[in-house]
Amino acid sequence: MQGSFDELVRRLGEISDVEKTAGLLGWDEETKMPPLGADARAEQRATLTRIAHELQTSPELGELLERLRGFEEEHDPESFEASVVRVARHDYEKAVRVPPSLRAERARSGSRGYRAWLEARRRDDYSILLPHLEHGLELLHEYIACFDSADDPYDVLLDDYEPGMKTAEVAEVFSRLKPELIALAASVQEPVDDSCLRGHFDAAAQRRFALSVLERWGMDDDAWRLDDTVHPFAGSLSPSDIRLTTNFHEENLVGLLSCMHEFGHGIYERQVDPAFFRTPLAHGVSSAFHESQSRLWENLVGRNLATWRFLYPELRDAFPQQFARVPLETFHRALNKVEPSLKRTDADEVTYSLHIILRFELEREMLAGTVALRDLPEAFDAKLEEYLGLRPRDDVEGVMQDVHWSDMSFGYFPTYALGNVISVQLWERAAADLGNPEEAFEQGEFGPLREWLGEHVHRWGRTFTPQELLERVTGSSLDPEPYLAYLRRKLEQLYGVSVG
Amino acid sequence: MQGSFDELVRRLGEISDVEKTAGLLGWDEETKMPPLGADARAEQRATLTRIAHELQTSPELGELLERLRGFEEEHDPESFEASVVRVARHDYEKAVRVPPSLRAERARSGSRGYRAWLEARRRDDYSILLPHLEHGLELLHEYIACFDSADDPYDVLLDDYEPGMKTAEVAEVFSRLKPELIALAASVQEPVDDSCLRGHFDAAAQRRFALSVLERWGMDDDAWRLDDTVHPFAGSLSPSDIRLTTNFHEENLVGLLSCMHEFGHGIYERQVDPAFFRTPLAHGVSSAFHESQSRLWENLVGRNLATWRFLYPELRDAFPQQFARVPLETFHRALNKVEPSLKRTDADEVTYSLHIILRFELEREMLAGTVALRDLPEAFDAKLEEYLGLRPRDDVEGVMQDVHWSDMSFGYFPTYALGNVISVQLWERAAADLGNPEEAFEQGEFGPLREWLGEHVHRWGRTFTPQELLERVTGSSLDPEPYLAYLRRKLEQLYGVSVG
Repeated sequence: MQGSFDELVRRLGEISDVEKTAGLLGWDEETKMPPLGADARAEQRATLTRIAHELQTSPELGELLERLRGFEEEHDPESFEASVVRVARHDYEKAVRVPPSLRAERARSGSRGYRAWLEARRRDDYSILLPHLEHGLELLHEYIACFDSADDPYDVLLDDYEPGMKTAEVAEVFSRLKPELIALAASVQEPVDDSCLRGHFDAAAQRRFALSVLERWGMDDDAWRLDDTVHPFAGSLSPSDIRLTTNFHEENLVGLLSCMHEFGHGIYERQVDPAFFRTPLAHGVSSAFHESQSRLWENLVGRNLATWRFLYPELRDAFPQQFARVPLETFHRALNKVEPSLKRTDADEVTYSLHIILRFELEREMLAGTVALRDLPEAFDAKLEEYLGLRPRDDVEGVMQDVHWSDMSFGYFPTYALGNVISVQLWERAAADLGNPEEAFEQGEFGPLREWLGEHVHRWGRTFTPQELLERVTGSSLDPEPYLAYLRRKLEQLYGVSVG
Repeated sequence: MQGSFDELVRRLGEISDVEKTAGLLGWDEETKMPPLGADARAEQRATLTRIAHELQTSPELGELLERLRGFEEEHDPESFEASVVRVARHDYEKAVRVPPSLRAERARSGSRGYRAWLEARRRDDYSILLPHLEHGLELLHEYIACFDSADDPYDVLLDDYEPGMKTAEVAEVFSRLKPELIALAASVQEPVDDSCLRGHFDAAAQRRFALSVLERWGMDDDAWRLDDTVHPFAGSLSPSDIRLTTNFHEENLVGLLSCMHEFGHGIYERQVDPAFFRTPLAHGVSSAFHESQSRLWENLVGRNLATWRFLYPELRDAFPQQFARVPLETFHRALNKVEPSLKRTDADEVTYSLHIILRFELEREMLAGTVALRDLPEAFDAKLEEYLGLRPRDDVEGVMQDVHWSDMSFGYFPTYALGNVISVQLWERAAADLGNPEEAFEQGEFGPLREWLGEHVHRWGRTFTPQELLERVTGSSLDPEPYLAYLRRKLEQLYGVSVG
C-alpha cells in the first residue's frame, strides 16, 4: 500500500508541476511577454492545459485511488496520507466526469467570447457579445448535465470555486446582506472629501512605499516578487515562489491598495504547510477563503486607522507635497469613503457586495431562463439602479463592465462577497485570540496576525473542506452578522451615522 | 496522406509547445525567480523534460513518420512538407535510441556534477569534482554505445550540436588554426592601452545605450526583451518572442558586447520563416551556425571601426566623462585588444579559438582514455601554457573555469570556434553581395546586412543540414582561411604587424 501511495504522490507531483508551469505561462503573459508572443502563448497554454487534464484523468490514477481506499481509512482523516488520497479522489472524480471535447469547446468558446467582449466594448455593441454568451450558456448546461445536481443546477458551478457550498446557503446569506447593505449605503449622506487621494503620485515612489509595507507584513525577496501588470493578480509557482502583480496609476493610490489585496492571496499560499509541496493539498481551500485573506489584508488591516497611525508618517515622507498638510483622520476617512459606484471594481467596502449580489441573482436567472440573454443589459441596469441608485449610460458601463461573463465563468462572483463575510468572521476570532491586534498595528507589528492566520488557516491548505475549516477556526458556519456589525461600527466611527 | 501529415504537424506542435514552455522555466529561473523557488523549479523542469521526451519518442509518432515516407518522397526536398517529415524523422530516430533510464541518469548526474563543481571551485579542490566526472564519462560511453559510430566515438557527441559534422573534419580545421593563431597572438608585442574601457559605467546608462544600438540593429519592443542575469544567454519562446539577457558590470563595457552577441542569436530565431511556427524547422540549424551569428554581430559588426564611426558619438553622449577626451581610434583599438588570457570567456578574437582547441583535444583524449581524469588538471595547464604562454595559479583558474565539463557536455565547445570560422565565411559572402556594408554601418544602416542574413541563412531554419546551408550560401565547405585572413588584416590595421 505504501508503494501505491508513493506512486500516487509521484503522479500528483507531476500534475502539480504541469499546473504550476501553466501558471508561469500565465504570469509571464501578463507581466513580461512581448505582445507578438501572444499567438504562441495561446498554443502553449492550451497544450499544457490538455496535458494536465490527461494526467488528472488517467486511468492509472483512478486505479491507484481505488486501490488506496483501505489505506485512506486506516489513517487519521487529518493525516497527510488520508488527506492527500481524499483530496486527490475528489479532484479525480470531478475531472473524469467532463468529456475532453466539452472541456476543449468551453476553452475555445471562452477565448472567442473574450475577444468578442473586447470588440463589443470598443463599439459599445452588446449584440457582438450576445451570440457568444448564448453558445456559452448552452455549454454551461452541458457541463452541469455531467454532474448529478439533485438540488440546484447552480450548485455545480459554485462547487468549482467553493467545494461543497450550496446555492441555497449563498442565497440565504445574500438575502440577509442585501437590505442591510442598501440601508447602510443610504445612511451615508454626508459627502466625503477624498481629494487628498487624487493628484500625482510617482509610480517608483509608490512601488517603494508599497514594498516597504509588504515587507513589514511578511514579504521578502527570497520567496516573493512584485511586478507590474494591467489587471493585478497573485499567483504562486511554489509555496516559496510567490508572484504578486499590481498596476500603479500615477493619479491615485489604487495600486497600493491592490498590493495589500494581492499580499493576502500571496501570504495564504506562502504559509501552507511545506510538507504539502507538489500535492493537491498545497493550495488555498477555496475561492472565498482566498478572497477572505485578500480582503482581510486590504480592508481590515489596510484601511484600519491603527495601521495608518504607524504607516502615515512614512507615506507623508514618500509624498510630502501631497500629504504634509492632510491630517491622518482626513486621509483615513478618504480611504474609507462610502459612495455607490457604477463599476464593481471601484466599489467601497459597503457597496461592493451589492454588485456581487446582483450578479449572482442574474447568473441564476440566466441559468433558469427567466432572464433571456438579449434582455440582460436592461435587467442588469434595473438591478444596479434598484440596489445602488445609479443607472449606467451605456452597456460598457453596465453589463459589459466585467470580463467574467465573456467566457461564462458563472459561480465565481459570489465568492467575492463570501470572502468579505469570512474575512470578518476570521478577524473577530483572531482579535479575540490575540487580544487587541490593532495595538500591535500602531507599533508596526503585523507578525502576530500573520502568524495566527498561518497557524489556524493557511497551513492546512486543502486538508479540510471550506465549511470544516470555517467551523474549526470560528466555531460557526458562514455568518453575515459579524461583517454587518463591522460595517456598522465603521460607519458610526467615520461618519457618526447609526443604522439598524 | 495529408491527414497523416496534419496529424504529424499537430504532434510536432505539441512537442514545440512543451519545449518552449521548458525554455520559459529556464529563462524565468535565470532572470526573475526568487531564490527559494529553486527546488520547485528543478522538479518542474524535470517533469517538462520527461513529458517532451515521451512525446518525442511516442510509438504513434514513429508510425506516422513511417507512413509518411512516400509523402516525403513525392515532395520537393526543399518544400515545407518534405522538410518537416525529414527533420522530424531525424529527431525521432535519435531520440528513440537512448533509453529513458540513461537519459534520466545523465540529467541527475549532470545536476549533481554541477553542484560538485560549485563546491569544488569554492574550495579549490578538484578531487570533489573528480568522481562526478568519472561517473559522467561512463555515462558518455553508454550514450555513445546507443548509436552506430563507425568512425570516431566523438562523432556521436558532436552530432548533438552539429548534425552531420565529423570529428575528423573539425580536427583538420583546428590543426590549420592552431599554429596560425599561436603565431598571430605572438605577433602582437606592443602593449595596448585599454584603460578607457575601465572605470565606472552606470548600469542604467549602459542599458539605454545598448538598447539604442540593438533597436538600430533590428530589435523592437513588440517581439523582444532584454533582461538582467548572471550568465548572459538568448532564448526564444516563439519566433516573435525573443528573450535576450545580459549582465551590465559597472566597471567595464563587457555587458554591451554581450548584448551584441546575444542579439546575433536572437535575430537568427526572429527571422526564421514564420510558416515554420511550432515545427522542428523553426530553429537555428546548429550550434556552430548559431554561434556564427552571435560572433558576426559581436565581432564583425560590433568591433568594426565603421560601426563605431557611427556609434561613438552616441557612446560619448552616454558617458561623456569617460570618453570625451578619448579619440575614436584609441577606443576602437582598446575594444580589439589582443592579449592571451587564462579565462576563455575573457579571450579576444585571436586567442579565443585556442581555448576551444585545447578543450576539444582534451575531450577526445578523455574519451579515448589517453588522459586519465585524475591527470586532467595538469594536462589542461600544460596545454594552456603551450598555446597561450600562461599558467593557471590553481584549478579554479584552470581546469574548473568552465561549467561545461561539470555535466560532461562534450561536443559543445568546438562549435564556438566553428562559429568564428563560419561567421567570417558568411561575412565575406554578404560583403560581396552587398557591396560595401561598412559604408552603410558608418551611416548607421545595419538593415541591409540583417536582411541579407534573413534571406540567405535565417529564414531556412533547419530546412538544410548545416553543411548544405554553408555550401549553398558561400559555395564552400567549412574553411578556416577567410577567418585567418580576416584576423591578419585586422591585426595589420590595428597594430601594423604582418604575419605569414
